Amino acid sequence: MAKVATITLNAAYDLVGRLKRIELGEVNTVETLGLFPAGKGINVAKVLKDLGVDVAVGGFLGQDNAGDFETMFKKTGLEDKFQRVAGKTRINVKITETDADVTDLNFLGYEISAQAWQEFVAASLAYCQDFDIVAVCGSLPRGVTPELFAEWLKQLHQAGVKVVLDSSNAALTAGLSANPWLVKPNHRELEAWIGHSLPTLDDIVDAAKKLKAQGIANVIISMGAEGSLWLSDSAIVRAQPPKCENVVSTVGAGDSMVAGLIYGLTNGLSQQDSLAFASAVSAFAVSQSNVGVSDVALLEPILKNVKIQLIEG
Amino acid sequence: MAKVATITLNAAYDLVGRLKRIELGEVNTVETLGLFPAGKGINVAKVLKDLGVDVAVGGFLGQDNAGDFETMFKKTGLEDKFQRVAGKTRINVKITETDADVTDLNFLGYEISAQAWQEFVAASLAYCQDFDIVAVCGSLPRGVTPELFAEWLKQLHQAGVKVVLDSSNAALTAGLSANPWLVKPNHRELEAWIGHSLPTLDDIVDAAKKLKAQGIANVIISMGAEGSLWLSDSAIVRAQPPKCENVVSTVGAGDSMVAGLIYGLTNGLSQQDSLAFASAVSAFAVSQSNVGVSDVALLEPILKNVKIQLIEG
Repeated sequence: MAKVATITLNAAYDLVGRLKRIELGEVNTVETLGLFPAGKGINVAKVLKDLGVDVAVGGFLGQDNAGDFETMFKKTGLEDKFQRVAGKTRINVKITETDADVTDLNFLGYEISAQAWQEFVAASLAYCQDFDIVAVCGSLPRGVTPELFAEWLKQLHQAGVKVVLDSSNAALTAGLSANPWLVKPNHRELEAWIGHSLPTLDDIVDAAKKLKAQGIANVIISMGAEGSLWLSDSAIVRAQPPKCENVVSTVGAGDSMVAGLIYGLTNGLSQQDSLAFASAVSAFAVSQSNVGVSDVALLEPILKNVKIQLIEG
Repeated sequence: MAKVATITLNAAYDLVGRLKRIELGEVNTVETLGLFPAGKGINVAKVLKDLGVDVAVGGFLGQDNAGDFETMFKKTGLEDKFQRVAGKTRINVKITETDADVTDLNFLGYEISAQAWQEFVAASLAYCQDFDIVAVCGSLPRGVTPELFAEWLKQLHQAGVKVVLDSSNAALTAGLSANPWLVKPNHRELEAWIGHSLPTLDDIVDAAKKLKAQGIANVIISMGAEGSLWLSDSAIVRAQPPKCENVVSTVGAGDSMVAGLIYGLTNGLSQQDSLAFASAVSAFAVSQSNVGVSDVALLEPILKNVKIQLIEG
């Protein structure tokens, strides 16, 4: 069976709630959905585990509030490769308003010292070679520059590790130069990379081709309700999920997509089937507040309604 | 030396941050000021302790995340009389925007069972009689109705306990019927109690007199930048603090005022001097993000500039 690890350099607690409308400057009572150990790589790992894939999780945890993570790893059966560092893991407050998008209030946590980073690079270069796919997810904590991050990704590439990169902003831009095996920017992030807007599907395909030409085997572009594109060495495929009737929270939709892709890739599914499956997992995520797939059978009715289109190849 | 206890029925963690402007529907990075064990009674106790008064703290704590409270009580030297209950203590997210008020996002925590409440009533009726003043502060957790709260306050009154009540909304209204020894509603809360707006100082004084006539020995009305009023059996006094040049956060200003009043009352200060001192402690609180008085000498320049006016008596 394939072995998968996810790395979360900037882990977080998600404090998730819902209310009608945020009144700025006032006291708002929030319908509380929970305080969850999170961070993009951990979310990806949770979904993979729900799908039956064994996963290890690594990165950094603040030693002052690691308890809830440790409990969750044990309960979920995730192999804990996290390095503990001084301080606290940050808290991301995520509020969904009725008829509005999620408002994120991201608080700061630990800062990584030069010594902690060196320890991490040495340890991760050793353990990542034991895995078939390593997903590197999310933002960079204070202390880890985009340059340090790109240098580490290059070392992973040179060691033959297949890296799935799901990040944004400076970390994404730096990471794209380090030959990851698969990247999953969204439409907006692709626009930021190429430096201009991409109004049509043709524009997006052209930009994604340019990105692929940099030496990236698989480029996947997520386009929200417009679905997603996958450019591989053999084909360009588009998937369109069914319209979601009951949007509870878009928190974790991207992480669920990455998990679905890795599931397909490590279970011998075709490119079309992998992308359709990933789209279904992502669409399912939108119907719930937390991240995960409580029952794989719930994916079936969504998967049946995903439209797959071969654009080239 | 006088003995003081504060009771916080609905304790909270305060997650405090600052940013230029909250962009709703977007990802906001928050300048993080900290995650503090809080709740109004605990804030009052911290300030009293800084002022050199020995304090015990009671109420409810969720057993799943009590650790940071326990550490803080030990470090600060507060006597821990909190009853542990199933679940987590809630988190209040407090965001200060530049040039705007604080936005509070209050998440839910533990719910008090009928059995836990009965245990609390029995225990608190016993220990509260050991204290000269008991400050009852803040909101009610789920499971404690305003009726249960008023019934408990009546029992404290019958047992001869001098209760300082600092609450709002339904808890304040219910509590006012239970003969507390001192209450500190703000201008808005007084308007809500009397049922109409109070545009002038004379209107406020008249309404406060009506409240006092209900059988409350001391009525203190806080009016923000307009200062505060104190109606006792012997006089009506007004205090006006100097204008604060550097407003960091109004979080805890009211709690600091209550602590200042209790300090004055238990140290034999006159009504005028107590109110002036309380105003200075409150004005000092506005210049910092956390609650407390790191150095009592810092109060001197503020206290010198508090204007005290005898309105009646």
